[in-house]
Amino acid sequence: MTPAEVIDRLLPSHLQAKASSELFAPSNIALCKYWGKRDRSFNLPVNASLSVSLDYLGTHTRLTPIDAEVDEVWLNGQQLLPSAKFSQKVSAFIDLFRRQQDLYFRVETRNNIPTAAGLASSASGFAALTLALNDALGLDLEPQLLSVLARHGSGSACRSVFDGFVEWRMGQREDGLDSHGIALDAEWPDLCIGLAKVDAGEKAVDSRSGMQRTVETAHLYQSWPLQAAADLEKLHQAIARQDFELLGQTAEQNALSMHATMIASWPPLLYWQPESVAAMQTVWTLRRHGVPVYFTMDAGPNLKLLFEQQCRDEVLRHFPDLETVEPFGSR
Amino acid sequence: MTPAEVIDRLLPSHLQAKASSELFAPSNIALCKYWGKRDRSFNLPVNASLSVSLDYLGTHTRLTPIDAEVDEVWLNGQQLLPSAKFSQKVSAFIDLFRRQQDLYFRVETRNNIPTAAGLASSASGFAALTLALNDALGLDLEPQLLSVLARHGSGSACRSVFDGFVEWRMGQREDGLDSHGIALDAEWPDLCIGLAKVDAGEKAVDSRSGMQRTVETAHLYQSWPLQAAADLEKLHQAIARQDFELLGQTAEQNALSMHATMIASWPPLLYWQPESVAAMQTVWTLRRHGVPVYFTMDAGPNLKLLFEQQCRDEVLRHFPDLETVEPFGSR
Repeated sequence: MTPAEVIDRLLPSHLQAKASSELFAPSNIALCKYWGKRDRSFNLPVNASLSVSLDYLGTHTRLTPIDAEVDEVWLNGQQLLPSAKFSQKVSAFIDLFRRQQDLYFRVETRNNIPTAAGLASSASGFAALTLALNDALGLDLEPQLLSVLARHGSGSACRSVFDGFVEWRMGQREDGLDSHGIALDAEWPDLCIGLAKVDAGEKAVDSRSGMQRTVETAHLYQSWPLQAAADLEKLHQAIARQDFELLGQTAEQNALSMHATMIASWPPLLYWQPESVAAMQTVWTLRRHGVPVYFTMDAGPNLKLLFEQQCRDEVLRHFPDLETVEPFGSR
Repeated sequence: MTPAEVIDRLLPSHLQAKASSELFAPSNIALCKYWGKRDRSFNLPVNASLSVSLDYLGTHTRLTPIDAEVDEVWLNGQQLLPSAKFSQKVSAFIDLFRRQQDLYFRVETRNNIPTAAGLASSASGFAALTLALNDALGLDLEPQLLSVLARHGSGSACRSVFDGFVEWRMGQREDGLDSHGIALDAEWPDLCIGLAKVDAGEKAVDSRSGMQRTVETAHLYQSWPLQAAADLEKLHQAIARQDFELLGQTAEQNALSMHATMIASWPPLLYWQPESVAAMQTVWTLRRHGVPVYFTMDAGPNLKLLFEQQCRDEVLRHFPDLETVEPFGSR
């Protein structure tokens, strides 16, 4: 069984494309991380994860049918060669939808967050592409099925199909149809996320390869699912009680535990820069002075700060270049 | 059963002190780390460890009997108050030997390595104190028993009783009499250790507390004994075959795995400074350029580099302030 076979059964056999579709999907920041796959071809995770979507920060994707035999892929206003890695990934994903049919697109992708700097543009990118394909092809699929489909592009894309807090249930099925995001019925109006950019360059090792190396070489990875399961439970409690300290502690320990599994890999996988450590120390100093601010990090050198509205000024004093987002602010 | 009861049975009931005894014990650098205790009062480890002693770098300790009712403790030429933490530790350790007897000492301790900066001065300190007590009191104990005794002062002190490569066998007994160092019958004349001092200040969290926090709060710690057991086996192979790459890789992954368990603790325990990360990056860059240099780290911000004689000049070019030691050089 391949992803193509599973998806083929879900979609109508004959497709037609609208003249143009443009959809947006937000970036998401995982508070309990997705780290490790139990199945690589389906992007099925070893553990459930939980994220918060970043409101207006993410990816806009426009699809326009074109009379051609190959997709035309644009990223942030630049047309890419069909042989570029990004073009190949996009076309391979569209292949899952078009199958044998002669349907090619101009794909215009615009991220308003730095690409490949640990800010999860692949999550919002594949989610936006899934939403745009759903619209362009008039599929009218349920959100959970859209989440299943987006997962095939990039695991964490299944969370970017939704706003707010999202749990990615790991599921049990081999075909992955029960492994998708679910929007939690919860808000947190005072919650702020600050993007502290240490380095916006390309990553030396992409997260897909990093994840694989960790699973294969780090003995400590064996305990990761335990940590993740405990953290997921604590995050649900924190959200239910609006207990910010519990939310922040859990997210920070979860992120550091994920990085710990990378650091314990061979060759060592350290996404941190010296400036990442300096930023962590600033966060810890702020906490020692009574400011409730925590951080999370993905497979990159940047910190994402977690704090509430009332601490915004204090946090900005120590991180003057912080870009802040209120995930529930514009609702 | 307490350490005092166990040691009481090993020593003669009546003791006399020589006029003066001065002994030296080397610092040791663990290539497979001691991290976590299965018994705190006896300093019994969760895992076996393996180290190399640092030749002339370590602690000189002189004991002179004094007519007093309290020990007089000097550290690096400075007399300490009896209430100082260091004095209390030293006197508590001497208590294990003198028991009810009226035997007090001037204890003069000189470290030729920075105190409490992750360079294991407590290991050489308690080893030298044990050797000096053995001499001062005419105990004439076997090296393995001296190692057992030193272990009660600081776990890793049991390795500093010996030169060269030393394995600390974890043992099985509750009284710890089978948990001690064993000198390996092996040399490695070309082996160099470089001390790259990032920061020689006092540690924010001592390794005893750090170890405890890790065991209690890091889920990932559960896999640490697996990593350590695999690494110990690989180090024995590397030493038997004089396979430097295997030695270096194993030591580096072991050290990073130990730090990973700390990073995954709560509150997070990060001994690294930004400069530690920069130094790691320099080591990795050197390796990418074909220079076989590896590092290990203890509970502090400093890197200890591992390389062979033929790379010394190249390594020193990138670490100009490196203090280098040849553990087998002066034999």
